[in-house]
Amino acid sequence: MEPSPLYRQLAVHYLDAIRAGSLKPGDKLPSLRSLTRLHSISLSTALQLCRTMEGEGWVEARDRSGYFVRRPRRLAIAAMEEPAAHVAPDPAQYVGIHAKVSEFVARRRQGEVRIDFSLARGAPELYPAQALQTIMMRLLRQRPALLTTAAPSRSLTPLREAAARRGMRAGMTLAPDEVLSTNGCIEALNLALRAVAQPGDTVAVESPTFYGLLQVLESLGMRAVEIPTSPQTGLSVEALEMALEAYDNIKAVVVVPHLQNPLGSVMPDAHKQRLVALCEQHGVALIEDDTYSELLDSDTPARAIKSWDRTGNVIHCASLHKILAPGMRLGWISAGRWHARVEMLKYTQTRSNEELSQWTAGEYMATGAFDRHLRRLRERLREQRERTTDAIAAHFPPGTRLNLPPGGLQLWVELPDRLSSMTVFDRALREGILVAPGALFSNSSRFDHYLRINCGWPFTDAIESGLRRLGEIACESGAVRMAA
Amino acid sequence: MEPSPLYRQLAVHYLDAIRAGSLKPGDKLPSLRSLTRLHSISLSTALQLCRTMEGEGWVEARDRSGYFVRRPRRLAIAAMEEPAAHVAPDPAQYVGIHAKVSEFVARRRQGEVRIDFSLARGAPELYPAQALQTIMMRLLRQRPALLTTAAPSRSLTPLREAAARRGMRAGMTLAPDEVLSTNGCIEALNLALRAVAQPGDTVAVESPTFYGLLQVLESLGMRAVEIPTSPQTGLSVEALEMALEAYDNIKAVVVVPHLQNPLGSVMPDAHKQRLVALCEQHGVALIEDDTYSELLDSDTPARAIKSWDRTGNVIHCASLHKILAPGMRLGWISAGRWHARVEMLKYTQTRSNEELSQWTAGEYMATGAFDRHLRRLRERLREQRERTTDAIAAHFPPGTRLNLPPGGLQLWVELPDRLSSMTVFDRALREGILVAPGALFSNSSRFDHYLRINCGWPFTDAIESGLRRLGEIACESGAVRMAA
Repeated sequence: MEPSPLYRQLAVHYLDAIRAGSLKPGDKLPSLRSLTRLHSISLSTALQLCRTMEGEGWVEARDRSGYFVRRPRRLAIAAMEEPAAHVAPDPAQYVGIHAKVSEFVARRRQGEVRIDFSLARGAPELYPAQALQTIMMRLLRQRPALLTTAAPSRSLTPLREAAARRGMRAGMTLAPDEVLSTNGCIEALNLALRAVAQPGDTVAVESPTFYGLLQVLESLGMRAVEIPTSPQTGLSVEALEMALEAYDNIKAVVVVPHLQNPLGSVMPDAHKQRLVALCEQHGVALIEDDTYSELLDSDTPARAIKSWDRTGNVIHCASLHKILAPGMRLGWISAGRWHARVEMLKYTQTRSNEELSQWTAGEYMATGAFDRHLRRLRERLREQRERTTDAIAAHFPPGTRLNLPPGGLQLWVELPDRLSSMTVFDRALREGILVAPGALFSNSSRFDHYLRINCGWPFTDAIESGLRRLGEIACESGAVRMAA
Repeated sequence: MEPSPLYRQLAVHYLDAIRAGSLKPGDKLPSLRSLTRLHSISLSTALQLCRTMEGEGWVEARDRSGYFVRRPRRLAIAAMEEPAAHVAPDPAQYVGIHAKVSEFVARRRQGEVRIDFSLARGAPELYPAQALQTIMMRLLRQRPALLTTAAPSRSLTPLREAAARRGMRAGMTLAPDEVLSTNGCIEALNLALRAVAQPGDTVAVESPTFYGLLQVLESLGMRAVEIPTSPQTGLSVEALEMALEAYDNIKAVVVVPHLQNPLGSVMPDAHKQRLVALCEQHGVALIEDDTYSELLDSDTPARAIKSWDRTGNVIHCASLHKILAPGMRLGWISAGRWHARVEMLKYTQTRSNEELSQWTAGEYMATGAFDRHLRRLRERLREQRERTTDAIAAHFPPGTRLNLPPGGLQLWVELPDRLSSMTVFDRALREGILVAPGALFSNSSRFDHYLRINCGWPFTDAIESGLRRLGEIACESGAVRMAA
């Protein structure tokens, strides 16, 4: 990577000071003259520094008095409204998401994508490639027969041990042999659903939820009932209770308690606890998708739902895809009282995972480097989320809403005036900008005026200008509609 | 590995001559005195050589005249009878194999296994660990971000290209983008069955067949109808035709045309062709499991069933598990007219396979080393099969039958007098010898007096004595039963 120009390096320096609170809204930046002396830079560089920070909305120029720190734009953006939890849920239905996703994919393939905001994924450079490579090469040298020896069934790989250890931090008591390695969290969810429900059965899901889950349900021939979900506190336990009373064929609930996809919501512990009790009382399996917990901006680990499980009714699923190695398909599942059935289903579906990648990831996770990596990753994602939110606040039409989530790599954006995200999607794609339209996150049309925006990539000028253009397109689409 | 003693090296030399036909049954070995001169060995080494070959049944001592080449014992073993093809098939039923396999696994865990004949797998040392390791380490150095970059969807990995190229040799015309990588052949079979049939539907399978397939059917809630299958020519197309006429809910046929597991049968081309036509005519999907073709003792590749497919009705599944890398979970599927559906199911089940292993295997397969490896592998497996058969002929009770298959790594052995293989299994396990009892290979009890014996491991003295002990146990079990 080329080093960034001097004025940009200095901008980052001042930004850090603003973020850390040592420069507060209303504080004055050093004068141009002071800047030249302080940093031994030319007057034009000092001017470029101030104008850049002004352009990005961090400071404002006041006539003849200099540059002052602004309130970050993101603080001006309105939060979303809470969903109505006390209405009867839509009837459970067979999921029809494949058609929507296929259309999305087909349209996407027509355009050439320059900037992709549609993912829910981190940039490769956010992950410790070098360290993983070093471990893998050492393993290949030390155990040359690893690639030519079939994985022993039930072998307690370092990944299973690491998953059990991480589980302890989240309040779960798991032995490594209660954890099964899977091909990513998506296989874990497949196995969990196949273990507890049959085709034709109904599964309660958050609304909105990630289309990957809706696709799994559709492919397994299961019905989904969508439960109102708060952008702040996640699944509405009251609404779920109403649904469980209204339908007697709900076999499972799938929930993402921390940094829900796409909302970014986090369930309070009291909600998780009530959810565990409610599911148990109704004899409904509770499937916890814990993909994002490690991305929470917090030094104390969040408590997993399964930590309150006393009867084996909670199935815990997780993965390394977002937190360590997007190029390795590694996830795991702790299936409680369905352990034997899930083990059998895993064997019949894909056999045991390869050993090499499990050893590589597991050995890395056993070192202090893993937590150091996670801290850096959270820090970088926080910056990316904040800068993305600032850009959205600056460029999107008035009335745009979003809740800045306390972690993770995506934003859920509500467009004003029920503006169609498909219109924005189509127009943006013509200019090479890809977004995930809200329609993909529900069977209903309730989220058609939402977008999910990925913040997993370093915030570059290209990203900034992509967001600006996206905002302009949204403004234009709104104006066109108003005129029509 | 330690070099084998001199007499053993010389025994291998003479064995090669016998196998190659330069020493024929009835031919005399050089005298002990000639042997000492020919090979500059001591008289005691020459004697050890001859006694070893005698002990293994290759030569016999005739009084005062020396050692003469014997007819290999395996030639004395009787072939199996052909199954009756013209009887109505058993009614289709839900597979109840999990219970059988669970019992097998539970019993196996009680004993300590010294010698494992129950696998269908090659020893790690039969595969090119070093070459695969070298390629993988080079890839890791050249593309350090491989582990931290999510696999692009639809990326045309070298594995997909190699699979398409190998397909050409087997008479199929496939573009790399018609081949999808899977987690082994077992995932390919799952996807194929999920694409063409629903829970409750009936699937026709060979009888006997490998329990892995019966487990997949059971876990998917499908019914199996077992079609009589010849130990020589594989699936009986006539019997299948009767079944298709008797049942109207058969949605698919799964067939292993080459080196069927467990039979080792090979379908003649004319049968394959009739099978393709029959399935098309009845609107039944034909799923070809081509795991073993590359292990056929032949320099001309066998023609895949899919090579006669003109309408996309044949789904071809294969894997590297038996032929290249038992430690890598790599298979592939070409799903004909179900391609889009299988692609969707693969995405919802486990996402795309990791890139690293696909690149490693695919790059190896693109070199001449792959065919050289396969030739060596076939040669070694042939020796192991022959020596295993010789040992069975020498030690198993009279009336034992088997067909020596033209390739592969296992033997299917019929015990005389309908001797229960579970009795043999139990007694052998007490002595640390594990076999796969025939009961696991069918829903019926038709194969309860069969055993499947793995020949994938180098034939050592331990294997020889394990087979001898197994034969004694079978003889004792038979005698006990007779006496009872």
